Amino acid sequence: MTQPVDTLFAGALVVTMDESERLFEDGSVAIRDGEIVAVGRRADLAHLESRETVDAAGKLLMPGLVNSHVHMADSLFRSLVEDLPLEPWLERLWISERAFVTHDNVELGARLALVEMIRCGTTTALDMFWFPEAGADAAVAAGFRLLTGPIFFDFEGPDGIAKEDRVSVGEAWLDKYADQPLIIPCVQPHNHITVSPEGMQAARRMADDAGVLFHTHCSETSTEVRQTQERFGRTPVGHLDDLGILDGPAVLAHCVHLTDDDFSRLQRTGAAAIHNPLSNLKLGSGIAPVARLLEEGVPVIVGTDGPVSSNDLDMWTAMRFAGLLQRGANQDPLLTPARDVVRMVTSVGAEALGLGDSIGRITEGRRADMILIDLDRPHLTPMFDPYAHLVYAVGRDDVRSVMIDGRFVMRDRALPTLDEETVLADVGLLAEKIRAHAATIGTA
Amino acid sequence: MTQPVDTLFAGALVVTMDESERLFEDGSVAIRDGEIVAVGRRADLAHLESRETVDAAGKLLMPGLVNSHVHMADSLFRSLVEDLPLEPWLERLWISERAFVTHDNVELGARLALVEMIRCGTTTALDMFWFPEAGADAAVAAGFRLLTGPIFFDFEGPDGIAKEDRVSVGEAWLDKYADQPLIIPCVQPHNHITVSPEGMQAARRMADDAGVLFHTHCSETSTEVRQTQERFGRTPVGHLDDLGILDGPAVLAHCVHLTDDDFSRLQRTGAAAIHNPLSNLKLGSGIAPVARLLEEGVPVIVGTDGPVSSNDLDMWTAMRFAGLLQRGANQDPLLTPARDVVRMVTSVGAEALGLGDSIGRITEGRRADMILIDLDRPHLTPMFDPYAHLVYAVGRDDVRSVMIDGRFVMRDRALPTLDEETVLADVGLLAEKIRAHAATIGTA
Repeated sequence: MTQPVDTLFAGALVVTMDESERLFEDGSVAIRDGEIVAVGRRADLAHLESRETVDAAGKLLMPGLVNSHVHMADSLFRSLVEDLPLEPWLERLWISERAFVTHDNVELGARLALVEMIRCGTTTALDMFWFPEAGADAAVAAGFRLLTGPIFFDFEGPDGIAKEDRVSVGEAWLDKYADQPLIIPCVQPHNHITVSPEGMQAARRMADDAGVLFHTHCSETSTEVRQTQERFGRTPVGHLDDLGILDGPAVLAHCVHLTDDDFSRLQRTGAAAIHNPLSNLKLGSGIAPVARLLEEGVPVIVGTDGPVSSNDLDMWTAMRFAGLLQRGANQDPLLTPARDVVRMVTSVGAEALGLGDSIGRITEGRRADMILIDLDRPHLTPMFDPYAHLVYAVGRDDVRSVMIDGRFVMRDRALPTLDEETVLADVGLLAEKIRAHAATIGTA
Repeated sequence: MTQPVDTLFAGALVVTMDESERLFEDGSVAIRDGEIVAVGRRADLAHLESRETVDAAGKLLMPGLVNSHVHMADSLFRSLVEDLPLEPWLERLWISERAFVTHDNVELGARLALVEMIRCGTTTALDMFWFPEAGADAAVAAGFRLLTGPIFFDFEGPDGIAKEDRVSVGEAWLDKYADQPLIIPCVQPHNHITVSPEGMQAARRMADDAGVLFHTHCSETSTEVRQTQERFGRTPVGHLDDLGILDGPAVLAHCVHLTDDDFSRLQRTGAAAIHNPLSNLKLGSGIAPVARLLEEGVPVIVGTDGPVSSNDLDMWTAMRFAGLLQRGANQDPLLTPARDVVRMVTSVGAEALGLGDSIGRITEGRRADMILIDLDRPHLTPMFDPYAHLVYAVGRDDVRSVMIDGRFVMRDRALPTLDEETVLADVGLLAEKIRAHAATIGTA
């Protein structure tokens, strides 16, 4: 190579998650123009000329985490609604959402979520929320890779978009963000109860026309399954499949309650299941059959869900729950080995979201979405198995630096693209109003 | 009060966990001679003269966490043995333990665990391990409150104590540590499979003679239940109860597999169940019936278990699992409300360990075991419910300062009583030997 590279990470334990899942104990990774151009042993990359060399000794370098299901701006309502099952919980939450969900507040909530996600080492998220342009603009400003896009919802929502306008508004949205390198548009109806079969099919067509991913909630609670059976005579997965929704790329958040037939349909269609263990447990929805999904070859990826139900956006905690729950629930300690869980939030996560060619692995030709983890911590000492550490011991504050698309969005814990202090202060002010409003409806 | 106090924490959100579970939004707590002498609104304590005032604005002050089940020096083997059920996992672990468990290594492992526990806000732990004097001495040096004491084990152990000598060695141990203010002696046979009925009864008598707590493993796995049935014709709880083991104060680690009769026996005897969700899940042992234990009035307290199975000593993670698991497993989001979980690791935890008069609550007359949590973090913003935050969002690195018995053992993240750098370096050196030894037996 004659041209110098931009950044050389030198001397890290590199967990590549590449096709052969290579580890380099004293490894280096070189970046040029936001792309990974070389990966290997430090000695083998020592000849590279670099504008900047980052000493990564004592650190673990791995692909950034993919949070496959989040509602960013729900961060504004963190811990406002507790101890309710999903359906009444949503009804209660929606009262506050209707009062406070404006474009500007969504952008503020998105910035709060971005601060939190970047601090925890998340480099890509799939966000579903009102005013998706507010979340997208916040992500672009923060240098964060975000999948988001038009939502569908048949009832009155805080965005004031009439049901019959959602297709045209959505198409305009997809056009607007089609060329933003960090925004990956998708189409996301809330679910098949709040959106009619016709609405679901219109959303699917919109996704197909634009060549983008389809994202919806599916089979989260037993109540939802019962309602779906009553209304449509089918399970949620069966309903979506029969509507043709699963004929194109689709990711289904939750998949907690599945029949044998549902497993077959998921397997046949290639839809991915997004496991959200934190919210599924907290809302009493249940424990998703992740072990069986994996056994049947259904891709399982992981999300935190929104911070009203989760109650934070910590992917390390979500990974730990994903890695431990199946073992306990099935009394089988061989289920979900740590490396499988790391795949769910890196290589497999990226593939299921349609980003397998660009992110999710540290390998030549991919975009440089990577995180540096400080191993010099008491809870990470000693280390005999790096994958076990990543799933069972690493935490958000062990993440030292975060790079997205070749650009540092966290460097030694500092956030160059976000004004954290102002974000926290602004949210604090808004929270006073949310609290006062909640008091008027007798719940806070 | 005429005499000045030693320390005044001023302006915190004080989560007292006292009898009325009072919260003070702008509260203060005064300490003199290691004892809490005043708790209240800042304005009401402003007249107190204090040698030192700690500005606690923007912080949450609460009782230190009680980790009710840990094997401190197993920190040396963190991530060495993965993906096995309890019994073969223990057999494999014991090979490495036998090679490396010496008095000095146990003290080193204990220091590592103490660094980790203090950093996460734990102020009291119940430790079971070989060479309990090594753990006790490390705790005294670190200023940490530790329950520990003689272990019973019928087979060859790394401490070289013959089965027939355990009573006399144990009695000498209890004598030696009887007057150490930070050491609370207890008697702890490993379990009723590795210790004969006579051994269990001898341990109970020793505990009664010394007036101390009895601590053992009980009903951890279905294999253990089956073995107990085969050998003794009873369940583990039934066996212990019939032996008279539960006639005095006792805490039973795990209690995962319980019959209706077991619940009645626990309820009748007052024994407490120690919930270790992390290791129970990881080893595939199962999900303890915590909701039913609570319903039947059995005290439930929480431990991390040892860092080979957990794989860290983070009580916040253990709390989060304790708070979420029951809801998902029983599909009931009203189970284990956040405040109940906070009780398990503070007031109820202290009471079950026989320390209810001295720690576990921020109230006048108790020893000053307290932690300061930084609320100015993105994942804790906003806060509508402090208990929800404590269980579902706070993490180890949010703990800023830790006081035990009136003395800071962590102050703004610095550790005045432990040389963390040396501990991590020494463990690193020992880990190389453990790794080399493991390679000779073909498992690492």
